[in-house]
Amino acid sequence: MKMKLLATLMAAVICGAMIAACSPPKAEMVKGAKIPDGTVDPAVWGKAYPEEYETWKNTADPTPVGKSKYKKGNDGGETFDKLSEYPFNALLFNGWGFGIEYNEPRGHVHMLKDQLDVDSSRVKAGGSCLTCKTPYAPALAEKYGVDYFSKPYKEVLNLIPKEHQELGVSCIDCHNNRDMTLRISRGFTLGKALKKLGVDQTKMTNQDMRTLVCAQCHVSYVVQKNAEMKSQDVFFPWDESKWGRITIENIIKKIRSDKSYGEWTQSVTGFKLAFIRHPEFEMFSNNSVHWMAGVSCADCHMPYIKVGSRKISDHRIMSPLKNDFKACQQCHAESPEWLKNQVIAIQDRAASQFIRSGYALATVAKLFELTHKEQAAGKQIDKELYDKAKDHYEEGFYRNLFFGAENSLGFHNPTEAMRILGDASMHAAKAEGLLRQALAKAGVNVPVKIDLELSKYTNNRGAKKLMFNPKQELKDPF
Amino acid sequence: MKMKLLATLMAAVICGAMIAACSPPKAEMVKGAKIPDGTVDPAVWGKAYPEEYETWKNTADPTPVGKSKYKKGNDGGETFDKLSEYPFNALLFNGWGFGIEYNEPRGHVHMLKDQLDVDSSRVKAGGSCLTCKTPYAPALAEKYGVDYFSKPYKEVLNLIPKEHQELGVSCIDCHNNRDMTLRISRGFTLGKALKKLGVDQTKMTNQDMRTLVCAQCHVSYVVQKNAEMKSQDVFFPWDESKWGRITIENIIKKIRSDKSYGEWTQSVTGFKLAFIRHPEFEMFSNNSVHWMAGVSCADCHMPYIKVGSRKISDHRIMSPLKNDFKACQQCHAESPEWLKNQVIAIQDRAASQFIRSGYALATVAKLFELTHKEQAAGKQIDKELYDKAKDHYEEGFYRNLFFGAENSLGFHNPTEAMRILGDASMHAAKAEGLLRQALAKAGVNVPVKIDLELSKYTNNRGAKKLMFNPKQELKDPF
Repeated sequence: MKMKLLATLMAAVICGAMIAACSPPKAEMVKGAKIPDGTVDPAVWGKAYPEEYETWKNTADPTPVGKSKYKKGNDGGETFDKLSEYPFNALLFNGWGFGIEYNEPRGHVHMLKDQLDVDSSRVKAGGSCLTCKTPYAPALAEKYGVDYFSKPYKEVLNLIPKEHQELGVSCIDCHNNRDMTLRISRGFTLGKALKKLGVDQTKMTNQDMRTLVCAQCHVSYVVQKNAEMKSQDVFFPWDESKWGRITIENIIKKIRSDKSYGEWTQSVTGFKLAFIRHPEFEMFSNNSVHWMAGVSCADCHMPYIKVGSRKISDHRIMSPLKNDFKACQQCHAESPEWLKNQVIAIQDRAASQFIRSGYALATVAKLFELTHKEQAAGKQIDKELYDKAKDHYEEGFYRNLFFGAENSLGFHNPTEAMRILGDASMHAAKAEGLLRQALAKAGVNVPVKIDLELSKYTNNRGAKKLMFNPKQELKDPF
Repeated sequence: MKMKLLATLMAAVICGAMIAACSPPKAEMVKGAKIPDGTVDPAVWGKAYPEEYETWKNTADPTPVGKSKYKKGNDGGETFDKLSEYPFNALLFNGWGFGIEYNEPRGHVHMLKDQLDVDSSRVKAGGSCLTCKTPYAPALAEKYGVDYFSKPYKEVLNLIPKEHQELGVSCIDCHNNRDMTLRISRGFTLGKALKKLGVDQTKMTNQDMRTLVCAQCHVSYVVQKNAEMKSQDVFFPWDESKWGRITIENIIKKIRSDKSYGEWTQSVTGFKLAFIRHPEFEMFSNNSVHWMAGVSCADCHMPYIKVGSRKISDHRIMSPLKNDFKACQQCHAESPEWLKNQVIAIQDRAASQFIRSGYALATVAKLFELTHKEQAAGKQIDKELYDKAKDHYEEGFYRNLFFGAENSLGFHNPTEAMRILGDASMHAAKAEGLLRQALAKAGVNVPVKIDLELSKYTNNRGAKKLMFNPKQELKDPF
């Protein structure tokens, strides 16, 4: 009996230790170092919290090569071109900046620099583009209102102090300077969006905040335009969704509900379309297993590291795959090899569905191109078939886009990702069928296999004349 | 230091206890009771192992109502009609027994009785149909050879001793009578199939056997026919696959490779097709997370129960959902409610993809019906489009069939199931498009929405005039 009691006690102690290991360590300030209110400069914060600051600076370093099959980030210091990885997207995004230069993200320290380097068409929306890139965004939005969103990018950039015009996400974006508690600095975007979900920000736990500070930027958004196509606001299309259930269906419904949400014109089809960016929070929080297990973004992407005798959250935020699954092993006892096999199994299946639906959509886009050419030449195209095909095409496109913009290749929510891709495939192929029927009805002969003319889209992109890099292509694993 | 050592030691003891809890308990024979070699009668085995015998007999009992959303089995003693659950299958399976009467499985004790009760068209393949239903199958196949497979069902049934003509899977199917070790009784089916995978049966561990005894029947198979369409053999289409990687692609390749594997003619399309049954082992063992974690079928479907002070494997084999997740809780600390939410999240997503691809396939089937009608009326249909459409249709059909025949609604291997369904949807919609084009080219006007005439297929089925039961329909949750 005594032994049993002792065993129970010891088990409790061990479990307690395990939970503590998974919990965020408490930040400890270096004595004497104070951070004045309103300080943006990370170096000043770094005097008080040198280890966190140093690991944050490490996001500038190349990530190790060969650890992650799909998400390459900054592996070996190489720039990974998403349009070479998935060539169908060069065709689908042709017509604006994303079809010219679209690279894998390299790390927090680089984010604003990368925005300055990327083809300038990517920042045509103006100051809006700085919303997640500079720690000055909240202050600029507060001070300049609509002007902040609408004025040319470079003009708004110049409102930032010279020495910080290349400074990406920093301490102040997530922390209170006085006590290091987490805070939402993006009240004007995430704050408003949480209200749509009916969430009371003041009631969020620290663990919630370990996800929400990331959700300030790792979400999709709409750059709202006025009649003159000038940017007016940046908002998250979370209407009709709930906390833990932001659905692709609701997002698409919202972004298709108003023509002014159309940000660009897809050149192959001529359609004015909206766009979706990095919806990590939406994907992860939609009833995924890790979300339901109470895991936060920081648990996996900022696992604790030991500095001397202390533990700190690793501010070198990156994929757990590149860190030999240390983050996973806080909760999962399996070996890194075992864990990697599971991640890759999921990602392979998702990548296959992504690539298949992507090529199916590219095929439809080319069929629309043909249809429009035939219409211009005087052919009558059945309106009902055309409209229905267009509807399916857009529904499929946004789903494929959602998955492709999300930075986990399905891992953040495997079955939800696969559901979205399955629907993308179905919509794409349905659109193809209706167009084939409409064209045949108009007497146009359409071959079984459609030539996508990919090299037209993958090569000589933009001022830099960017070319397809076959070594970076990620092929269908099935 | 001493404390740390003690803690480590205690942790080891606790972990050891946990692993032991997950391991199969050792069967203990009641003293004096011996089972003579060759004994089939479960009651005789039951004298030596009364608890296992009693729980096996409990598979006759109705399963509890409301625990499982999708797999209903024998809930409340009701018979669940799979063609009412998924009405598109009434259309797709129309043309043979599965399109007349196809019920959810009720439990091991009922299996042979249910085969006698089901519409007799379901046992047209002859003695072959008994391969998994009677413990006498191995002996009959051994003794009668091809005759066992080919002779009429009732004739072969009468070779079984009268008192066991309603006896389903029993002790002898999985156990050695002398020491209760697990054994493969179906050498003539599973034994041969394992050889195809390059697996040496003699090297299987006990944990492997806790899956393989189930894999004797919970697999798909082909009833091989001769030129006169007489059954010759039952084999598993595992050619070109590997242990842990029996793929849908390889299965379809095999079953499409020889016309003699076609077992039936789909009435709506007129196509001679193969069929797929309950591929639980194939789905589960294809790099699923539980398979990779070393979990066996018995771990989840035969969790230990306490009988007095002893533990036994529950021989009332059923879904862990109907058992309040006791099986899951051997390894997962979460509450039954939490676990159920995760299972249903996976199953809802999979069910949606299954139902969507199913209706897409039913639509294609109706378009083939229309195409054939138009051909009969003299319309010229483009051969290339037709052939390609047929190819896509069959590829899609077999994938949807594989998922629908598998008894876990995706849970046994979530992302693989979703991958299969995504491809099913894509193939279905591609087929639809090519047919629409071919028909339009031939001057046939095809409406956007195709009338499936479902009631033609769901009602008045077979001699029993079985009707659609709307209360049993499982609707797309998205």
